[in-house]
Amino acid sequence: MSGFLAALAQVVGADGVQTGDAIPPRHRTDWSGAAPVQPLALVRPRSTEQVSAVLALCTAHRVPVVPQGGLTGLAGAAVPCEQGIALSLDRMQAIEAVDVRAATLTCQAGATVQSVQEAAAAAGLQLGVDWGARGSAQIGGGIATNAGGNGVLQFGMMREQVLGLEVVLASGEVLPMLRPMLKNNTGYDLKHWFIGAEGTLGIVTRAVLRLRAAPRARATALVALPHFEAALELLARLQADFPGALSAYELMWRDFVAASLAWQELREPFAAPHPFVALIDVGGAEEGALQSALEAALGEAMEAGVALDAAIAQSHAQARAFWKIREATAELPAHMHPPINFDVSLPLADIGRFAEACRAQLDARWPGHHTVFFGHVGDGNLHLTTDAATVGGDEAGVEALVYAEVARFAGSVSAEHGIGLHKKPYLGASRTPAELAAMRAIKQALDPLHLLNPGKVFDV
Amino acid sequence: MSGFLAALAQVVGADGVQTGDAIPPRHRTDWSGAAPVQPLALVRPRSTEQVSAVLALCTAHRVPVVPQGGLTGLAGAAVPCEQGIALSLDRMQAIEAVDVRAATLTCQAGATVQSVQEAAAAAGLQLGVDWGARGSAQIGGGIATNAGGNGVLQFGMMREQVLGLEVVLASGEVLPMLRPMLKNNTGYDLKHWFIGAEGTLGIVTRAVLRLRAAPRARATALVALPHFEAALELLARLQADFPGALSAYELMWRDFVAASLAWQELREPFAAPHPFVALIDVGGAEEGALQSALEAALGEAMEAGVALDAAIAQSHAQARAFWKIREATAELPAHMHPPINFDVSLPLADIGRFAEACRAQLDARWPGHHTVFFGHVGDGNLHLTTDAATVGGDEAGVEALVYAEVARFAGSVSAEHGIGLHKKPYLGASRTPAELAAMRAIKQALDPLHLLNPGKVFDV
Repeated sequence: MSGFLAALAQVVGADGVQTGDAIPPRHRTDWSGAAPVQPLALVRPRSTEQVSAVLALCTAHRVPVVPQGGLTGLAGAAVPCEQGIALSLDRMQAIEAVDVRAATLTCQAGATVQSVQEAAAAAGLQLGVDWGARGSAQIGGGIATNAGGNGVLQFGMMREQVLGLEVVLASGEVLPMLRPMLKNNTGYDLKHWFIGAEGTLGIVTRAVLRLRAAPRARATALVALPHFEAALELLARLQADFPGALSAYELMWRDFVAASLAWQELREPFAAPHPFVALIDVGGAEEGALQSALEAALGEAMEAGVALDAAIAQSHAQARAFWKIREATAELPAHMHPPINFDVSLPLADIGRFAEACRAQLDARWPGHHTVFFGHVGDGNLHLTTDAATVGGDEAGVEALVYAEVARFAGSVSAEHGIGLHKKPYLGASRTPAELAAMRAIKQALDPLHLLNPGKVFDV
Repeated sequence: MSGFLAALAQVVGADGVQTGDAIPPRHRTDWSGAAPVQPLALVRPRSTEQVSAVLALCTAHRVPVVPQGGLTGLAGAAVPCEQGIALSLDRMQAIEAVDVRAATLTCQAGATVQSVQEAAAAAGLQLGVDWGARGSAQIGGGIATNAGGNGVLQFGMMREQVLGLEVVLASGEVLPMLRPMLKNNTGYDLKHWFIGAEGTLGIVTRAVLRLRAAPRARATALVALPHFEAALELLARLQADFPGALSAYELMWRDFVAASLAWQELREPFAAPHPFVALIDVGGAEEGALQSALEAALGEAMEAGVALDAAIAQSHAQARAFWKIREATAELPAHMHPPINFDVSLPLADIGRFAEACRAQLDARWPGHHTVFFGHVGDGNLHLTTDAATVGGDEAGVEALVYAEVARFAGSVSAEHGIGLHKKPYLGASRTPAELAAMRAIKQALDPLHLLNPGKVFDV
C-alpha cells in the first residue's frame, strides 16, 4: 500500500495526497450527516490527466474511489470508504471559457456553482439552475447528482444545462464528450449515463454548460389559495399567461407558513391566514408591462375564485421579504430536533392527496407531531419535514410511512437529492426489479471491478 | 423457422404476421433511400405485452429484430435485415391520456407525431418539437432517433420532451419507466439510454411526454443580414429581448434563397438580394405588443448595422409566405439530381467559417457545383445540399470532403437525423475510439446477443 501511495504522490505531487490526521475532517462526510469515515487517502488532482492517472493506479491496485465535490450533498453519496481514496476535485476550479454568442460556458468540474453563476452574469447570461449551497457546491457534484433547486420549472434540472461532458472511467480512460452543440445525434449520447449516476460510473472532470438569457425584468408575488386544486389551476393559468417565463412556483402549506413566520418573527403576509400560499417569480422584458400583466392575471384568478388574495412585490426588498418566508428551510435544523427531511416527487395531480394521506397517517400514529409541507410544486417536487422530537425520534418509522405512500402514488423517493447511502433502502419504492437489473448491467459494463463509489445508489 | 412463425402468430394473431409478397413494399426501406430489403416477416403487435412476447421468442430463436415506426427516417435505421423480423409499431397508436394541468400526454409509441400535436392542441397546449414528416412519423421513432426539427431552439430535442418511457429489452423484459415527474433522481435515469439509440438497445413502446404552453400570439419576420457574424449577433439580441420565447431562428445563405425563389417562382422578399436571410418566429402574450417589441428590436438591429433590412409578417398568410422560402427543402428532390444532403452541427461561432471552408473546397474540386446552405442555425445545426449532377455524381467524394471539415471543426456528422446505416462510415469523425468502446460495452450489457437492429449505428 505504501507503494500505491507513493505512486499517487508521483502523479499528483506530494501535496496532493493526504493521509491520516492530515485529512481535513470535512472530507470524512457530507451534509447528509452520515457518520464520518476516514479514507485511505485524500487525493487532490489538478487536471484531467492526473484524474486519469489516479484512476488507472486505483484500478491496477484494486482501490475504490469516492469522488468528492463541495460535500453539500444530502444523500451521503460523497461519504468516503475506509479501503478507498477520496478524490476531491477542489483543485480543478477553472472557468475555462464563456462564449457569449453561443451562450455556453466551459469549466472544470470543481468550479463552484456560484463561480459559474458569476461568470454567466458577467456575460449578461444566467445558469439555469440555482440552489442554496451554491457557494460550496461544485458543478461536477451538481452534474453527478443531477441537482435541481430553483429554476427547474423553467430550465430543467442540471441535466438540461449540460451540453458536453468530460468523464474519466474507472480504467483511467477519458471520454472527451465536450462538443458544445445543442444537437448531436451520433450514436449513444453517453453523457446522460453519467449525469445523475452519483459517481458510480465515471468521474466528471469538465463540462460545457448551456447558459440562458437573463430576463430584464422580474416580478414576484405571493398568492393565497383555498386548496391544492386551486394551486394547480393557478399554475396552469400562469404557464398560459407567461409561457416559458414562469421561473418559480413554490407552494407552502399553512403549517409551513406558520412555522416560518414564528421562527423568523415575520408578520402574516395577508390579513388572514390561508390554507396555501404560492410564491411566484416571473420574468419579462420590461418591468412596468410585466407588473401590469401579473396584476391582471392574479386579478382574474381572484375573480374566478381560484385565488383568495394576492400581493405583488413593489420593490426588490419586498420580493426578498416574500422569498424569506419560503427560505425558512435554512431554519429547520435550528427549530426541529432534528428535522426528518423528505424530497419526493409525485404526479402533479396527486400531490395534494399525497400530502393529506401522509398527514392523516402521521396524525393517527403520532398525535401532536410537527410536520411542515412545502416544495417546488411546479416541478412536482414536494418537501416535507417532521420534527423527530415530536415522533419519539422514530425516523425510520416516519420514513417507512412516507415512502410507502410514495410507492402507492407511483412517485419518486428522491426528486432532486439523489439516492447516495441514505435512500438506498427505499430505492425499490420507485424502481422495479427490471430497472434495477438494467442499472446493475450498466454498472458492470462500465465499472467491472466496482471501484467507483462502491455501495452508493445500489449494491452490485 | 415455420415453428417460429407459428409461435409469432400465436402471440400477435395471424393477421399480425406477414411474410413474402404479403409484406407491403414500404416496409422494405425508409426515406433514406437505402436499397430495399425483404425481412423474414413483418410483425405488427397491438400491445406492450405482445412486443414483450415477440422479443422473448426472437431471443429464444436468435432472430434479429428491426423496429419500424413511420419509416420517415433519413439515415436508414429502419431498413430491415433478411434474417430478421421487421417489428412495426403501427397498431399501437393510442393517445392514452392528456393531463392538462400537469401538461403531460401519455401515448403508445406508434402514435403519429401529428396525432400527438392535435391532442395537445385540443388541450390548449403544444408538443415542443415538430418536423415535416409529422403525419407519418411516429413518436416512438422520434424518441428512438431523438428527432429535432422546428422548436429545438426553444424546447430542445425530442429527448427534452420525454418524461417517462416504457421500453422492452431484447430479452422481452419490460422497463416500465413511465413516471411523469419532471424531477426523479432515483438511480440511473434509464430512459436516456434508449432515447437516440435508434432501436439498438430496446424497443420503445409507450411514452409520457411533457407538453408546453402554447403562446397566444406569434410574430414572424424575415431579416436581411450582411454576414454570418451579424446573424449570430442578431440571435443573441433576440434571445436577450425575448428570453425563452424565440421559437425559430432559421438562417438561409443567398444560394439557398436564390434556389428557393427560382424553384417556387417566388418574388425576392427584399428590394435587393442579401448575403443572408434569417427567418424568425417569436411567441408572446398579446399580438400588438409582440409586433411592437419585434419592430423595436429589429429597428435597433438595423440602426446598429447588424441587420440590413427586415419585414414583419402582417398576417398569417404573409407569415406562411415567409416560411415558404425556408420550406424549399421539400423541392430538393425535384430540382437536384439527386440531392446529396448533410445534417451537421458545429460550435455556433464556427458555422460561418465551416460553410466558407466547404464552399471553397467544393469550388476548387468541382467548379460550377450547385450547393445550398441553410439550417436551424439557432441550434448550431447546418444543412447543406449539393446537386449530385454538378459534382459528377461523386456522392462519396462530397461526403468525405464535408465530413473531414466537420471533424476539423469538432462538429457532429449528424445533428438530428441519426447514424443508422447511412452515416456509420463517418461516426468516427464525431466520436473518439474511447467513446465507441463505451457504446459497445453498453450494447453488450443490454443486448448481449446483438439481436436489436443489428448493423445500425455501429458494428459490434
